[in-house]
Amino acid sequence: MKKIQVLAPATIANLVCGFDILGLALDAPNDNMEIQLRNTPGITITHSDAFGLPTEPTQNVAGVAVQALLDAYPNKNIGVDIVIDKIIKPGSGLGSSAASAAGAVAGVNYLLDHFFTKEALVQFAMYGEKLASGVKHADNIAPCIYGGITLIKSIFPLDIVALHVPKLYVTVVHPQIEVKTSDARQILKKEVALKDAIKQWGNIAGLVAGLYKEDYELISRSLEDVLIEPIRSILIPCFDEIKKAAINCGALGGGISGSGPSIFMLSKEAITAQQVQLRMQEIYTKIGLQHYTYCTTINTNGIQINEL
Amino acid sequence: MKKIQVLAPATIANLVCGFDILGLALDAPNDNMEIQLRNTPGITITHSDAFGLPTEPTQNVAGVAVQALLDAYPNKNIGVDIVIDKIIKPGSGLGSSAASAAGAVAGVNYLLDHFFTKEALVQFAMYGEKLASGVKHADNIAPCIYGGITLIKSIFPLDIVALHVPKLYVTVVHPQIEVKTSDARQILKKEVALKDAIKQWGNIAGLVAGLYKEDYELISRSLEDVLIEPIRSILIPCFDEIKKAAINCGALGGGISGSGPSIFMLSKEAITAQQVQLRMQEIYTKIGLQHYTYCTTINTNGIQINEL
Repeated sequence: MKKIQVLAPATIANLVCGFDILGLALDAPNDNMEIQLRNTPGITITHSDAFGLPTEPTQNVAGVAVQALLDAYPNKNIGVDIVIDKIIKPGSGLGSSAASAAGAVAGVNYLLDHFFTKEALVQFAMYGEKLASGVKHADNIAPCIYGGITLIKSIFPLDIVALHVPKLYVTVVHPQIEVKTSDARQILKKEVALKDAIKQWGNIAGLVAGLYKEDYELISRSLEDVLIEPIRSILIPCFDEIKKAAINCGALGGGISGSGPSIFMLSKEAITAQQVQLRMQEIYTKIGLQHYTYCTTINTNGIQINEL
Repeated sequence: MKKIQVLAPATIANLVCGFDILGLALDAPNDNMEIQLRNTPGITITHSDAFGLPTEPTQNVAGVAVQALLDAYPNKNIGVDIVIDKIIKPGSGLGSSAASAAGAVAGVNYLLDHFFTKEALVQFAMYGEKLASGVKHADNIAPCIYGGITLIKSIFPLDIVALHVPKLYVTVVHPQIEVKTSDARQILKKEVALKDAIKQWGNIAGLVAGLYKEDYELISRSLEDVLIEPIRSILIPCFDEIKKAAINCGALGGGISGSGPSIFMLSKEAITAQQVQLRMQEIYTKIGLQHYTYCTTINTNGIQINEL
């Protein structure tokens, strides 16, 4: 049987003002998976990394996502063997669980001659997110599968819109602390002031228009989150200092990746993104906090598949 | 001295999900003004219509707007004579006061060889809105001056973004009832549920993307206001019936124009817009409510000036 390599990209959800609706895919890091079909039912999962994630398919995000796909596939005599080399660190806020789930279903669908649509793949992969966080959400899954910057206009019914993506450099820092998604969600207020909501949707409209117009000034002016960031950023060490330093380097703006703890910054030029990376390293090194940084671009193709 | 005719278009503010931030200009109706400079200070305002609006410049929206402009102009020996033939009915929710204020300053600026930028004209015209409603707002002024569909991302500082405008037909019905802007504002809740705000900004992002992609299906799916319309529409007779009838005719969607009482609907085809107009007329005629309808397109040029 044919064997493939699947590269599933890290993603940034809750893109500043686009809380719960905007996400983007990164060119790095990527999870690396090997997938092969077989003519007997069942799913096996093997990890070649050291994160100690569950291998029981019903307890693994890739496992439940692939099971959802197989349940919808007419031929019931097909099984799947998956080997995962996880590169995107779990708990980083960079869509680690989404990469496993989306990568697995995209890979299996490739081996099934693209039987399912991308939208169906998002539906299957969301079972992985439900296992990981208790909630079906697509703000990492959608950009992982579609690439680029995606608007998740609605989950029920699923309504995904791929947006125009101008050239952008992305710098990410992942400080080695744990922010539980459930905690990050719990500290949010259930009600917000109408005037703040209006400011937020003015920024979202400006950001979307800025992407289409390739107007970097407008993108920069719109990268402002008046609702979520002021609350969640207190969970992340040196957030304000890093953001300020990045803007001083010339970054367009940025914020919390997903529900944290990673912080990302967008820049128009590669040199700016590299300077931002240096400043991030300096700030966390100064306080002795272990961290990883990535200086990358937006992945406009989504999941990449190579035949082995 | 040179004399000009100024045609200042009606405008629709609070464009469905774009409460307080999105407005558009209509090809009809237009206020009709005649403006002439003179070499002695002072402003005179004459009305050739029968609405009985104030002619004292400090009490007239065009008067205060032009005064703000003259205050910023170096030559203090200039005066302005304005004759207004108001066609856009005051209190219609179609930007009647904005048309007077914006038309007057745009006309004077034309006669001053475009001394001021469009942005400055918006600033001056907002003094008219402040006189009319107590609040400086630009959601009618900006589309009146810029034409097309405008995003008013922020008022302080002023940040206006002209959006891409695909071909759209607009049907408007103005039922002859009074909805005071202050009442319409007062019944709004000051706090909204975060989940509703998220839905609203998903729709705004979808609408802006839909305009750029010229994706009429996406525009239609995004023309939904979950926050303001459910509250304000109770002030407008037959709102739900008219909206439902318009959608049944094939309209893309629509809502309350400004703070009402006018209702507008967007359509992709002229024939649909005309059918919507007929249905609006039938519904209000059935209950004996006097009304005016307009079946028009989006004015992409803003204020039109002709030399006399």
